[in-house]
Amino acid sequence: MKNWIVALLLGAALTVSAHEMNMHMAAGEKTLKVAVVLFDGVEEIDYAGPIEVFGASGATVLTVGLSKAPVTSVYGLRVLPEYDTADLPDVDVLLVPGGGIGEAWKNPQLLAWIKERSAKVRVTMSVCSGAFILGKAGLLDGRQATTTSSMRDELARHFPKAQVMRQRFVDAGKLITTAGLSAGIDGSLYLVQRELGAERAKAAAGYMEYDWRPQPESK
Amino acid sequence: MKNWIVALLLGAALTVSAHEMNMHMAAGEKTLKVAVVLFDGVEEIDYAGPIEVFGASGATVLTVGLSKAPVTSVYGLRVLPEYDTADLPDVDVLLVPGGGIGEAWKNPQLLAWIKERSAKVRVTMSVCSGAFILGKAGLLDGRQATTTSSMRDELARHFPKAQVMRQRFVDAGKLITTAGLSAGIDGSLYLVQRELGAERAKAAAGYMEYDWRPQPESK
Repeated sequence: MKNWIVALLLGAALTVSAHEMNMHMAAGEKTLKVAVVLFDGVEEIDYAGPIEVFGASGATVLTVGLSKAPVTSVYGLRVLPEYDTADLPDVDVLLVPGGGIGEAWKNPQLLAWIKERSAKVRVTMSVCSGAFILGKAGLLDGRQATTTSSMRDELARHFPKAQVMRQRFVDAGKLITTAGLSAGIDGSLYLVQRELGAERAKAAAGYMEYDWRPQPESK
Repeated sequence: MKNWIVALLLGAALTVSAHEMNMHMAAGEKTLKVAVVLFDGVEEIDYAGPIEVFGASGATVLTVGLSKAPVTSVYGLRVLPEYDTADLPDVDVLLVPGGGIGEAWKNPQLLAWIKERSAKVRVTMSVCSGAFILGKAGLLDGRQATTTSSMRDELARHFPKAQVMRQRFVDAGKLITTAGLSAGIDGSLYLVQRELGAERAKAAAGYMEYDWRPQPESK
């Protein structure tokens, strides 16, 4: 870890990215395996922000779609899921982004798979309107949760058994939900802190030159 | 514009994304066409942050690669460029992200194309170590520029004719360069403000729930 930070600060070799530096982390150091769910209409920052945080923290990041066909994000970025729901290996974290969720949150196959897989992972996490997908999969009932600030009343209406919080992110143990868009970055840094330690989260935020808000209540 | 903000605040329909709302912007309202260069090793937040900002601001966002083959980002996200260098239409902004630039900044075909295309666009912009690619294309000579904080000395060594600034982003007219990673979000919001107006940039930052730093000198 120390070598990694030193290398970051020196920025010695242009070709050495944080990713490559992570390869040199001490063997046996704790890590995380994170799967990010991709679907047509998904919002760019909702998945790329967390992928950046987890990647810069030394986690392994996988992407998963209902199939391996290209997915078109809400502003047009086309992404290729590495796995589909049939062949995704075991992971620690299942991350469900938001965006244009009109089709995703009504897809019974996707909802059933998320429900089933979330029972096997350590943490299920949503960003922005991804909370509505988790809600439809039954994962918000009896739990504290949040979503993008403009949709919190709607979340409460749709899922009356959820306790909707007006926070930037909410830690409900096996469930982490975040507010909108860039809040996914803060929620991911928080999860890195919780699972891999504050030093690692701080280093990732520093590397990303990001003003991290470590307090869930900050907005 | 007003309708767009009202719709954002109400967040009325779950399926209505900012993207779809942009479709309803008043005809004739100013917009931008932005092309984002993708290459193997590119860093996720470097391109996805700006894509989110420009998309949420009503700009048209295109992606371009040396070919249309899938590009693998530094943390593994695979993206499909919509255009290649041969068929990219005219754009207003050419954006060059950074990350693992080891191959990109030594690719004569890519450098020649960036140099040629940058002469035709209103603004060429880099994020993070993308500044080194612009430097190799000769675009930093005689201009103020910046890059990620750990690599500024190295940028000055490689490109002695550039005036390297210790800022979060630098506006050198036709050239905008930003510091590392999340700074690309601030630089993009700044460019939206400059080209489309402060109201639009403020609305995008608010939509993204992002603490925008409007001042280039802030870090």
